Amino acid sequence: MSNGIGKEFMEKTKYKYMGESDQEKGIPQPPLELEYGDDAILIDLPSVENIEIKGMDLKEAIESRKSLRKYDATSLTIEELSYLLWCTQGVKRVASRPATLRTVPSAGCRHALETYLLINKVDGIKPGLYRYLAIENKLMQLSLDPEMAEKVAYSCLEQDFIKNSAVTFIWSAVIYRMKWRYDERSYRYLHLDAGHVCQNLYLAAESIDSGACAIAAFDDDEINDLLGLDGENQFVIYAATLGKKIL
Amino acid sequence: MSNGIGKEFMEKTKYKYMGESDQEKGIPQPPLELEYGDDAILIDLPSVENIEIKGMDLKEAIESRKSLRKYDATSLTIEELSYLLWCTQGVKRVASRPATLRTVPSAGCRHALETYLLINKVDGIKPGLYRYLAIENKLMQLSLDPEMAEKVAYSCLEQDFIKNSAVTFIWSAVIYRMKWRYDERSYRYLHLDAGHVCQNLYLAAESIDSGACAIAAFDDDEINDLLGLDGENQFVIYAATLGKKIL
Repeated sequence: MSNGIGKEFMEKTKYKYMGESDQEKGIPQPPLELEYGDDAILIDLPSVENIEIKGMDLKEAIESRKSLRKYDATSLTIEELSYLLWCTQGVKRVASRPATLRTVPSAGCRHALETYLLINKVDGIKPGLYRYLAIENKLMQLSLDPEMAEKVAYSCLEQDFIKNSAVTFIWSAVIYRMKWRYDERSYRYLHLDAGHVCQNLYLAAESIDSGACAIAAFDDDEINDLLGLDGENQFVIYAATLGKKIL
Repeated sequence: MSNGIGKEFMEKTKYKYMGESDQEKGIPQPPLELEYGDDAILIDLPSVENIEIKGMDLKEAIESRKSLRKYDATSLTIEELSYLLWCTQGVKRVASRPATLRTVPSAGCRHALETYLLINKVDGIKPGLYRYLAIENKLMQLSLDPEMAEKVAYSCLEQDFIKNSAVTFIWSAVIYRMKWRYDERSYRYLHLDAGHVCQNLYLAAESIDSGACAIAAFDDDEINDLLGLDGENQFVIYAATLGKKIL
């Protein structure tokens, strides 16, 4: 028996129910990305200008894309990881509004997503959980727990191919960044935005002999707890595994 | 004052609230696409194998993509339109489950989207409203109302650049196709899926000297009425304009 929440959500996120936004009230907008402390362990990533990717025709990438759940044991290079992060959340420019202009669009340029990475097999990076600092183009180390892959897989309803991925992207939303302008309708926009991001990951995967698989089936509470998110102000909305194709 | 529906939606679409799905109950799945009558006016589209696109490197397409709201007066060719439809919803194969395997992923291969097109400037196609028959790769004519562009723009909160687009894609969801398996969580997945589709449109636009602009701000009731959708079983969730760049 369905609880009818979906229909109610579509109804009550119509424009006629939108309240005055915090932006309209003159409240300053929230920061463009999550903060981090002085003691954060940061890893520099190569800039996309310095990364050689052999390239792939767009049409070919679209045609060959399919969800891949079996991966070769080969690691990604740090250049490949940086390329994937650039394709999915790369900041092209910080505009003066202020807003980030990225490789993906976002409703009203709000860019409310934060990328977490479960890294299993990337050359030169210890396996563990990381957060991507999009503006700085750096990784921030969160946990080197050797059971992290196991725990992430478990939180994703035991989709065990996560453990064999080279990297699993986990996209969370900082809701207020979107809600500041779009009130409750933001919850639609976050999901639309995340779809854009994941499609770029799929296509970019093809161009580095890899494959991806989107994951939207997870235990929200478990995965949020694992990432240290409160599930209300910030919560996971989408994820995707990625690894080299078995040739 | 927010009505709090977004938070409630995220809560009540958690797995712990999922009821037994119609699939689990043994109810047959709904058709893969909307039906149409014998008297439907259909337009054949060229097959993607027969379309020459000059091609563009994926990385270049991702880098150059930005939302474009001003378009040249040039029309699209029917080949370009067909290419865009293939990139966004193209059916690569109808598998025996049955399910459609498309150029974009969809949660559980449910593919609950139906594409409507406001055509303003496509060679050989009369301006009006059409629906894309993805499996047949045909257009179905719905209305030649000369004020259709005006009406669509109005329903999208007067985003008047819609009137200058060569074509505006309007993606609707047939909710039961997704809900049959995923119950209320489907409403998350639909939006994720639509983001995937729109990202491919953005990238494909770049490869034909065009630009796109996503639109998620619309009066739901007005746009659904305009397309003849009941707003409950089928409703618009996303749209995007597209037109040639001004060089």
